[in-house]
Amino acid sequence: MPNKHYTVTFQPFALKINADHGEAVLQVARRAGIHINASCGGAGVCGKCRVTVENGDVSGGISEKLSSDDISAGVRQACTALVESDLTVSLPEDYILDGDLLTGESARKHRATPVEFDVQTLQKKGVFLPPVEKFFIELPLPSANDNMSDAGRLSRALAEQYSERGLHIGLSMLRKLRRICREDNFRLTATLSRPVGKKAKTQLVNLQSGNWTDRNYGLAVDIGTTTVYCQLIDLHTGENLGMNGNYNGQLSYGEDVISRIIYAEKPEGLVKMQEIVVATINNGIESILQESRIRREEITCITLAGNTVMTHLFLSLEPHNIRRSPYVPVSTLFPPIRATDLGLQLPDYAIALVFPAVSSYVGGDIVAGVMGAGMHLSDELTLFIDVGTNAEIVIGNREWMVCAACSAGPAFEGGGITHGMRAAPGAIDDFAIHPRTLNPMNRTIDNKPPRGICGSGLLVIIATLLEHGIIDARGKFNRDIHHHRLREGRSGFEFVLAGRDETDVGHDIVLNEVDIGNFIRAKGAIFAGANTLIEEIGLSLEEIDRVILAGGFGSYLDLDAAITVGLLPELPAEKVLYAGNGSLLGCRMSSLSNHIRLDVLKVIQKMTSFELSEVPAFQNHFTASLFLPHTDMQLFPLVAEKISERKIDLEQIKQDD
Amino acid sequence: MPNKHYTVTFQPFALKINADHGEAVLQVARRAGIHINASCGGAGVCGKCRVTVENGDVSGGISEKLSSDDISAGVRQACTALVESDLTVSLPEDYILDGDLLTGESARKHRATPVEFDVQTLQKKGVFLPPVEKFFIELPLPSANDNMSDAGRLSRALAEQYSERGLHIGLSMLRKLRRICREDNFRLTATLSRPVGKKAKTQLVNLQSGNWTDRNYGLAVDIGTTTVYCQLIDLHTGENLGMNGNYNGQLSYGEDVISRIIYAEKPEGLVKMQEIVVATINNGIESILQESRIRREEITCITLAGNTVMTHLFLSLEPHNIRRSPYVPVSTLFPPIRATDLGLQLPDYAIALVFPAVSSYVGGDIVAGVMGAGMHLSDELTLFIDVGTNAEIVIGNREWMVCAACSAGPAFEGGGITHGMRAAPGAIDDFAIHPRTLNPMNRTIDNKPPRGICGSGLLVIIATLLEHGIIDARGKFNRDIHHHRLREGRSGFEFVLAGRDETDVGHDIVLNEVDIGNFIRAKGAIFAGANTLIEEIGLSLEEIDRVILAGGFGSYLDLDAAITVGLLPELPAEKVLYAGNGSLLGCRMSSLSNHIRLDVLKVIQKMTSFELSEVPAFQNHFTASLFLPHTDMQLFPLVAEKISERKIDLEQIKQDD
Repeated sequence: MPNKHYTVTFQPFALKINADHGEAVLQVARRAGIHINASCGGAGVCGKCRVTVENGDVSGGISEKLSSDDISAGVRQACTALVESDLTVSLPEDYILDGDLLTGESARKHRATPVEFDVQTLQKKGVFLPPVEKFFIELPLPSANDNMSDAGRLSRALAEQYSERGLHIGLSMLRKLRRICREDNFRLTATLSRPVGKKAKTQLVNLQSGNWTDRNYGLAVDIGTTTVYCQLIDLHTGENLGMNGNYNGQLSYGEDVISRIIYAEKPEGLVKMQEIVVATINNGIESILQESRIRREEITCITLAGNTVMTHLFLSLEPHNIRRSPYVPVSTLFPPIRATDLGLQLPDYAIALVFPAVSSYVGGDIVAGVMGAGMHLSDELTLFIDVGTNAEIVIGNREWMVCAACSAGPAFEGGGITHGMRAAPGAIDDFAIHPRTLNPMNRTIDNKPPRGICGSGLLVIIATLLEHGIIDARGKFNRDIHHHRLREGRSGFEFVLAGRDETDVGHDIVLNEVDIGNFIRAKGAIFAGANTLIEEIGLSLEEIDRVILAGGFGSYLDLDAAITVGLLPELPAEKVLYAGNGSLLGCRMSSLSNHIRLDVLKVIQKMTSFELSEVPAFQNHFTASLFLPHTDMQLFPLVAEKISERKIDLEQIKQDD
Repeated sequence: MPNKHYTVTFQPFALKINADHGEAVLQVARRAGIHINASCGGAGVCGKCRVTVENGDVSGGISEKLSSDDISAGVRQACTALVESDLTVSLPEDYILDGDLLTGESARKHRATPVEFDVQTLQKKGVFLPPVEKFFIELPLPSANDNMSDAGRLSRALAEQYSERGLHIGLSMLRKLRRICREDNFRLTATLSRPVGKKAKTQLVNLQSGNWTDRNYGLAVDIGTTTVYCQLIDLHTGENLGMNGNYNGQLSYGEDVISRIIYAEKPEGLVKMQEIVVATINNGIESILQESRIRREEITCITLAGNTVMTHLFLSLEPHNIRRSPYVPVSTLFPPIRATDLGLQLPDYAIALVFPAVSSYVGGDIVAGVMGAGMHLSDELTLFIDVGTNAEIVIGNREWMVCAACSAGPAFEGGGITHGMRAAPGAIDDFAIHPRTLNPMNRTIDNKPPRGICGSGLLVIIATLLEHGIIDARGKFNRDIHHHRLREGRSGFEFVLAGRDETDVGHDIVLNEVDIGNFIRAKGAIFAGANTLIEEIGLSLEEIDRVILAGGFGSYLDLDAAITVGLLPELPAEKVLYAGNGSLLGCRMSSLSNHIRLDVLKVIQKMTSFELSEVPAFQNHFTASLFLPHTDMQLFPLVAEKISERKIDLEQIKQDD
């Protein structure tokens, strides 16, 4: 059933907003930039987000928080009231902000443009070229005048019909060739794995009698330190057939890469680490196959990317020296490997390709992200930032790139924050505040009662507090504000985002100055890293044409918030792209276009890796970045303007709950 | 002890001949072209080869056939009397031929020039380049300014120090690299396997800490239908370290390739054929390692060649269609294979290389022979003949080659001949006849009493009978000769080479007209094949510059005999080369010079294979070749002259024993 679209009219503004069938009214208001109190994250628990439906149908939106009089008067909880038709909704008077502020709020909801490629474009450009492809061939029958060998006959046909020359035919293929040729009168399907370098041959990896060209599937796998994502791809059509994320089984042996390395150094530790991550991937493959009803035998290739440590553990390469100065990995290049040789439960003809790394700290996941987002093909000077447990930065264009890992710490993944958490159900991932009542509008993932704050939520909360002057440039709360939500806690001043009764965790959810300090160091490290790298090559941040964001921010990052806090330089929203899981994007791209694999060695050779701690300028840049947004406000003129406009009027603050 | 040289003077001719210490007097006489009766092949049994030692010392030469008077008069049996000093030996009067005849006999002992290459020449030409080579490297230690990966460090050093670029490092090598680097402070030995084609990379196949460059060995293996030869080669010095021949274990399943194919078509038959030949090779390797005291771990490569069927069986490729029209093999090209994957008892880093074939009937053994003998590098128009159970012919030069297999049958291997046998101890392999007494001088292999006639013996016997007019051009005995050695036997007329009491087999050894007919068809097929091939490309036999002989003739072929019977065209002796086991020669050459492997694809592409039965002219040529030497005597003017000169005088024939 195609999704129906309705119009929701918010009164008293007469603001008309498009809405999908079944969308929550709170969600629609949020898109409009309209503030509605919602402490509980849209879970229907706090009962604060009351609106009145004047016209049209909603479903839900009713709880014991509403009296029967309210209900008959059309009052509903905006968080759980779902749009069923065109609506007119009026907002309680005290929610209503003046027109100016409304516009400001609305303008802030900029999102980065998602990076996606579509198969038609690849096909048009002639770069749709899966690394493993099936070819159907009808061979001329052998005769006295044409009695070349079966292998020669096949090679000749592939060269003549498909320009596939210089084929490598291994022993296992030769052993079945005669039978396959004669099973269906010399009509057969040859599965070819394309070469990864110039000095390599196309390999014949499978033979089937008859025509099987439309049954050709590949897997893309991001081996994250925390989560392993698998994606199933139809190599014939380019279609995505399914996706699956599982915690990396290695998590039980340590959350970060260093503790994994330490475990791998124990006797049999490396073998165990390898087996565990392979088991995680095998589980992912199993689920995705069950869901998609694709047969395992039809998977011909798997492309994987991970950081350098994850890649070493996956391949059972000793990672010992990655954690010891001068931080030397065993290798940054990895050969194509038979998937079964790694323990992957795939057919013996499936080839595993692992993205190469740049260094111990800039891994194949970053290379995949850079290439998946097409940075290596663009003339524009691009800042690529992948934010995960650590952050990696790449600056450059098709000609050159510099890169570094930043010790940003895990704040953007909710780590090191009092009530931080991963981007999981119940995590506050968006936020607004009423400038007079200081009431928060928390949005949580899956509309569950709040359980904590995830990275993207943290970013918006801090940006909002800064804009309204509730915290200052050093991240300290304005002690002149006297409000029950602002209080002295165990770790200094804190802001109460949700009261204990509104949450799912039995305590208040707060953000304190220590949390803000950790966040500032994280964003400061990234900004300083980018600033240092670009200076190293004699340019400055102002010259950056665009930004590509990848990684753990969840699917949407609030761009204005990111600029407000000084994580990103001031750029127009359309110049910021969001690549999502860059590693997975690169793997998927590589599964559809062998050009990625052909270019990857050139790309990593262009990527100059810096160890920021070895660059003297970094420390100065870092210190200058430990302000919101930055010591040098000339870098952020629009932010400066916004802060002065939005600053709340202490006189008007009401303690309304 | 260096070999001492003496002079033996034969009386009454005063003919002085150089002799080695310990050489039999009969052997020395034979080299002089002097005929001494010796029916028993030099085994000391017949007692006919009496000579008188006038001066100097011999050892042996005494048996119960000599009286004590004889012995004290200096009479000895020439076959077992060994030269111990300078000698004067007089011959019994009835042995003595007139001077003219003596010269003729002497002139006949032309041998083909052995083809050999020496390592110094390869080195001088810059083509000494073993396919697998060890390199010792001292890597610069990693530092903060130079912290590339271990694999990158190794690749860089190999490129800088040895110009080895674009190395392929497989997973198993990456897995041990970190440890090996650090075991001896980044001093290590890398074993590299060179690429076989342009579109291939040098492979890192082994790593050892420390310097092991001088311990690098290879094996060359000729997989013959009958015999498997293994040779051990020092890849560092090029030296031959040992050689070994064993019957192919598949012999129990059929003597020829067709019966082997039939067996391989049975359930599990192919697997069994593969296992058996691998076991034969493994036995060969085992013996050669024991004799040479080289450690198995030090063998890094093995190069093999065989005919197309033997190669298919060795690789477990279905040979079924090789014996069925239109005679299609599975493949003529074979990839490099890990030796252990074939069941060879070699280290897992040893790579097996198998010579490619041209067609079902011109196999890798022929390609190896052609390349081992350097035919593919020469401007001279060369006729290459490999005579084994079948015969293969190649004609051409560095620019082009045509080739074919001839259904010569096994006559040259002693097959299809009443008293034929392989070239084993007791086989008559050389022969002369006394023109008046018709007494034979049989030489046997290892001087054992005669057991039969091998290929090279058969050739000389028939040539000798022809020269003396004992048989005619059709191979029929001259019925006008009345002599006890010429008689009617079960299969028509026959010549008695050795009486029952002189042999080791309990019966007379004879050659009959059926045998001669078989021989004529064999030599005729080869000559007609060569003639047909050369005509196909618009040339004629007269334009051939040289001949290279390979294969089962034993180490020496009597060139004059080969020309006399019309097997070879009339060419000066120095234009005939003998390559011995061409297949083994090619494998050994390929083990020392990777250029062979690089060139082999180009060579087989130049080799146009003909199916002689499909060429109409062949039948005419064959019919014309069914004469000794040929219907067209203008092709053999010197032979014609010789026959008219040597023809025996029927009047003078004596029945002297």
